[in-house]
Amino acid sequence: MLATTIHAPFDVRLSEVPDPTIDQPTDAIVRIVAGCICGSDLWSYRGENNITAGQRIGHEHVGVVEAVGSAVRTVKPGDFVVTPFMISDGSCPNCQAGMHSVCKNGGFVSNLPADGGQGQFARVPQADGTLVATPEMPDRSLIPSLLTLSDVMGTGWHAAVSARVRPGHTVVVVGDGAVGLSGVLAAARMGAEKVVALSRHEPRQRIAREFGATHVIAERGDAAEAAVLELTDGVGADAVLECVGTGQSMATAFAVARPGAMVGFVGVPHGVDVPIRTMFSKNVGLAGGVAPVRAYLPELMADVLSGAINPGLVFDQELPLADVAEGYQSMHERRAIKTLLWP
Amino acid sequence: MLATTIHAPFDVRLSEVPDPTIDQPTDAIVRIVAGCICGSDLWSYRGENNITAGQRIGHEHVGVVEAVGSAVRTVKPGDFVVTPFMISDGSCPNCQAGMHSVCKNGGFVSNLPADGGQGQFARVPQADGTLVATPEMPDRSLIPSLLTLSDVMGTGWHAAVSARVRPGHTVVVVGDGAVGLSGVLAAARMGAEKVVALSRHEPRQRIAREFGATHVIAERGDAAEAAVLELTDGVGADAVLECVGTGQSMATAFAVARPGAMVGFVGVPHGVDVPIRTMFSKNVGLAGGVAPVRAYLPELMADVLSGAINPGLVFDQELPLADVAEGYQSMHERRAIKTLLWP
Repeated sequence: MLATTIHAPFDVRLSEVPDPTIDQPTDAIVRIVAGCICGSDLWSYRGENNITAGQRIGHEHVGVVEAVGSAVRTVKPGDFVVTPFMISDGSCPNCQAGMHSVCKNGGFVSNLPADGGQGQFARVPQADGTLVATPEMPDRSLIPSLLTLSDVMGTGWHAAVSARVRPGHTVVVVGDGAVGLSGVLAAARMGAEKVVALSRHEPRQRIAREFGATHVIAERGDAAEAAVLELTDGVGADAVLECVGTGQSMATAFAVARPGAMVGFVGVPHGVDVPIRTMFSKNVGLAGGVAPVRAYLPELMADVLSGAINPGLVFDQELPLADVAEGYQSMHERRAIKTLLWP
Repeated sequence: MLATTIHAPFDVRLSEVPDPTIDQPTDAIVRIVAGCICGSDLWSYRGENNITAGQRIGHEHVGVVEAVGSAVRTVKPGDFVVTPFMISDGSCPNCQAGMHSVCKNGGFVSNLPADGGQGQFARVPQADGTLVATPEMPDRSLIPSLLTLSDVMGTGWHAAVSARVRPGHTVVVVGDGAVGLSGVLAAARMGAEKVVALSRHEPRQRIAREFGATHVIAERGDAAEAAVLELTDGVGADAVLECVGTGQSMATAFAVARPGAMVGFVGVPHGVDVPIRTMFSKNVGLAGGVAPVRAYLPELMADVLSGAINPGLVFDQELPLADVAEGYQSMHERRAIKTLLWP
């Protein structure tokens, strides 16, 4: 089959790789209907994460089950499924506590002998714990939104859960990538009264507003902080979603948080120094991490199928899988927010 | 009047200082019935915090109101009051949100032109917002427990609130000082099923058990981590109270926390590097800070007066105020857990 491989910084290719097979009785093989490129794939693309030349890349997909191992009970060939980017067995103590992203028998698909989503097929381990099937074959128009549930929408939701967004809150979202935009949608869906998106890019601002942002602040750094304080009578935000993972974004998140607030963080931290003395003096907490998107999938899938949310709007580029290299390049150059790949 | 002053590391004295006066209509003058020495006073005593030679020190007391300014409505001369270590007006947006320790018109008593508790009298600013009176004059036997509500018991409670302790939880408390022991009591009072105290000092272990610790672990570092994991079937604690503030104590706190847990921290951070990558991969959050003890005072005062809790057990030394220097020395040398001073 064909799948995406990375060979060096800025060098991704569609390559011929072995077809996946059922290796364990808990495996499933999924024929990929749609995959996509994640902002976190760009860390490897840019050479900021170590890679092994020729390794597979990608971790988000939806598809149709082709085959299942003998132990699989909850999905069957023909089911349309969403595959979370973290494999989980659903039964370990961490899964039972809703922390599927720290499953004792799972892990990140790219670190396992599994397959990511930028290809034609994928072997999915722990199929019963990991995969969630739709009740029936979804209309093609719903596929982008369902695809976001494999990562970005669940990750934005986790930022909002971690920041303990409540109805009536003023919520600031730092980061206008697909995850940040999903965080805007999550905060609005949870009943936040004011949702403030920090974004200086007009196409992203527009999606933020479609997702429920009541305010958009184009400033950065001190000016962004001042703008949030002005919006909140000098108090700061009740909850802050940090959806980037850099030192600057984390500093902004803490600066705009009101005393007693939580910062929910989901951006993979790169060069972040946590301002512990500020946390202490302002009583601002920090929670989050690798999102247990599997935990949120049933609720978010119902919202997508009912039309209550339309997170698929984050895809502003759709390409055939053969053009995956162009997909990476356009996301790297910020010409695209997020790129969907049709195999 | 007489009050405690600090002149250099290891040099505290009882000195003649001006009597406090009503400077603002919102002030009260309190005749101190009991004061005490805080573990955080030891940072200055040891020369680890900067001081100005001759400055006042101390921030915990209970007493009887002597006089009030013209604007004070909620306390009157003759009332027995607990004075939180942070002044708060009770009406600013932070106070209204329960974050009295970040009051926009208050602050730490030692940083304000106010008086701490290691003296004969204290001027208390923002008396209406800050002071909480008992319904009647308490029995002398209750005074130590009431005194803990000015700081350590409220601070231990805040650690447990920040760590989101729930009934049935397994809670680990890092730190066996007065705050850590108060954290044990808080976790037990909140319904934790297992309360694990990390302590290698027999007198502190005994108080921890009296406060509801179900397990005491004398090991430190990796061995302590292993012991907690063994106790929790390899999963870790549901909530961790970090009541020290050093790099080592914070590292232990994160090491014993289960995925999805919160670390509640109340030890003033000194040399702490927050392990952001561990937080991210394990989804362990961090919250806490300067405790809003005023927010917890009504509930905790009712618990003390009813006998439901007896946090005054943390005082294992009582001295006349004249012996304040011996009080500091014995706490510094860990001969005393916490020293009560009778003026």
